[in-house]
Amino acid sequence: MENFELLAVDYYSQARLGLLHTAHGVIETPVFMPVGTQGTVKAIAPDRLEEMGVKIFLCNTYHLHLRPGEDVVKEAGGLHHFISWPYSLLTDSGGFQVFSLTDLVDVDEDGVYFRSHLDGSLHRFTPEVALQIQMDLGADIVVPLDQCIGFPASSHEERIGAERTLQWAKRSKQFFSSPHQLLFGIIQGGMDEDLRIYCTKETVAMDFAGYALGGLSVGEPPPLTYEIIEKVEPFLPHDRPRYLMGVGTPESIIEGVRRGIDMFDCVLPTRNARNGCLLTHQGKVNIGRQEFSRDFRPVDAECHCYTCLNFSRAYLRHLFKCKEILASELATIHNLYFMVELMENIRKSLREGYFLEFAEEFLAGYESNSSSFSKK
Amino acid sequence: MENFELLAVDYYSQARLGLLHTAHGVIETPVFMPVGTQGTVKAIAPDRLEEMGVKIFLCNTYHLHLRPGEDVVKEAGGLHHFISWPYSLLTDSGGFQVFSLTDLVDVDEDGVYFRSHLDGSLHRFTPEVALQIQMDLGADIVVPLDQCIGFPASSHEERIGAERTLQWAKRSKQFFSSPHQLLFGIIQGGMDEDLRIYCTKETVAMDFAGYALGGLSVGEPPPLTYEIIEKVEPFLPHDRPRYLMGVGTPESIIEGVRRGIDMFDCVLPTRNARNGCLLTHQGKVNIGRQEFSRDFRPVDAECHCYTCLNFSRAYLRHLFKCKEILASELATIHNLYFMVELMENIRKSLREGYFLEFAEEFLAGYESNSSSFSKK
Repeated sequence: MENFELLAVDYYSQARLGLLHTAHGVIETPVFMPVGTQGTVKAIAPDRLEEMGVKIFLCNTYHLHLRPGEDVVKEAGGLHHFISWPYSLLTDSGGFQVFSLTDLVDVDEDGVYFRSHLDGSLHRFTPEVALQIQMDLGADIVVPLDQCIGFPASSHEERIGAERTLQWAKRSKQFFSSPHQLLFGIIQGGMDEDLRIYCTKETVAMDFAGYALGGLSVGEPPPLTYEIIEKVEPFLPHDRPRYLMGVGTPESIIEGVRRGIDMFDCVLPTRNARNGCLLTHQGKVNIGRQEFSRDFRPVDAECHCYTCLNFSRAYLRHLFKCKEILASELATIHNLYFMVELMENIRKSLREGYFLEFAEEFLAGYESNSSSFSKK
Repeated sequence: MENFELLAVDYYSQARLGLLHTAHGVIETPVFMPVGTQGTVKAIAPDRLEEMGVKIFLCNTYHLHLRPGEDVVKEAGGLHHFISWPYSLLTDSGGFQVFSLTDLVDVDEDGVYFRSHLDGSLHRFTPEVALQIQMDLGADIVVPLDQCIGFPASSHEERIGAERTLQWAKRSKQFFSSPHQLLFGIIQGGMDEDLRIYCTKETVAMDFAGYALGGLSVGEPPPLTYEIIEKVEPFLPHDRPRYLMGVGTPESIIEGVRRGIDMFDCVLPTRNARNGCLLTHQGKVNIGRQEFSRDFRPVDAECHCYTCLNFSRAYLRHLFKCKEILASELATIHNLYFMVELMENIRKSLREGYFLEFAEEFLAGYESNSSSFSKK
């Protein structure tokens, strides 16, 4: 059986409805994947994720390699056992962290030397090493080591990063041998449309189980992101899932879905939550604001999450002002529930044929109020 | 109906089995009350407390007065509504915090001026103010403002604190008018047995709904605590609950129960949890230790809490090493579950008449291993 079933394509856009099968279950797409960097989605326990319908989240290869080390995870019976998560998991390649977080020592065709951001210790990633770590971790979806180029970057840098990523993808494909894992290819190419199309064709020719667009949402203006998706989309096979890495916000997810993306991941819903920035159907809200000190309504009257069903804006504000740990948990529960529900509504609109109407209506309510909170 | 039903007194000790009725339910005693300083038991949501059988916890009047202020809580419909807790709550008098945490400006017979530990603002507590705050907060059990004397203290200090506490108790009793709240008296008197007995008699003569022993567990050696409990116990009425404030550890709770105490509160199980110190039937465990890095057994094989049923010592250690918020939550769940279960087992042993055997067996397992963790 193929791992991806394309159930429907929207008549008025590129939006797709699908099912992704992994060794740990079925994921309805389009899907948003929360980020569980160090083997935990920050500030929320796995039973709460399960309860709200999360079926997959992402862990960072770089972080887990440093702590606790893939050998510990493997000895525990793999990542699912170690972190007690019975559904699907995805690990990234470590490339993004190596190129953005560490003290880089040397990069060449063969791989990269870098120093840990934790203790300065020297480490070596090659495509084979990065993939072996991921095979030891045992996530359901894994990706090859790639070189992520920031924004802005010179044409030369973009080409070097793109070619290196293609070479590393080829080596990863050869090295990979793990019947229960899916290897996705990562498409780089910076902000150069021709280079992106070239990379897409080359990567697709290698025949991966899915395709990730990397090196986007790295600081470029959103219209540029959307333009690049539009350019490469025609070269992506319809029968494989497409994953837009590091995206994102409710708006950018809707824009991505419209352009044919099936999978998203981003730290924003969880990171924002810990900073008191809550997602609502009326836009983003900074719950720490004085105006909420005697506001006894839920964060979002339309929301049915544990937080909104039980607690007021005033109480949440109090918890944030007091720096209570519960503030982070309740806000994280709410923001992730919001994202899960958004994706459910997107899929429902695709199933029933009104995706663009849904998108328009959602964005109108969301964007018009993002700076101020509805007084009702 | 009386608020306290004494169901049984142990034949071989002073230990008591009882039921405490409040406006928000029935509490089986002996009971351990977690501490929810600022209106949340740190690092755990109320649904988890409910799930594990917690029926009452304590909030701090001093902290809630400063943030968010009793006016906000009152406007929210009271503390139960504000924090979303349908069972019983107790507030302390604020005295302990005022005398230990703040910059004291002036204390006299009438009350105390102090500066907030948060912003240095000047505040005034009199017995009437402290009780009015608690009446506004609306906890089920409230206490009069008292003057807690530390250890060691001079006879003079002990006598001053004791007399002032008695005077304030008298004024509080007169001022109190709240049909749905229970007012407990606090007995001070330092480490002087005669003074303690005097305070006990005087306080009991005022006829409170329950009696709290304050100013113990403030640094004195545990045998001295137990001695003082033994001295005052004969002067406490059998038909009222007795509450030992700020205690404690599993050992000291068992010693307190043996001497006729019904209620306990302490920050230790939750504070220790956040520091990686876990309670087990084999004693205390510092989960951060290297020896647990590949230990895939649960924290406590006998425990049925969410943490022990789902996660290993190795994973918990990893979370603590990474300073993940989930570390605090999982450890808090475990430690509170441990305390709830300990109290359940104490009550069962009292019901079935084997309390001293239970106490002996528990302490033998717990104390013999408190510094090292059983290797099974």
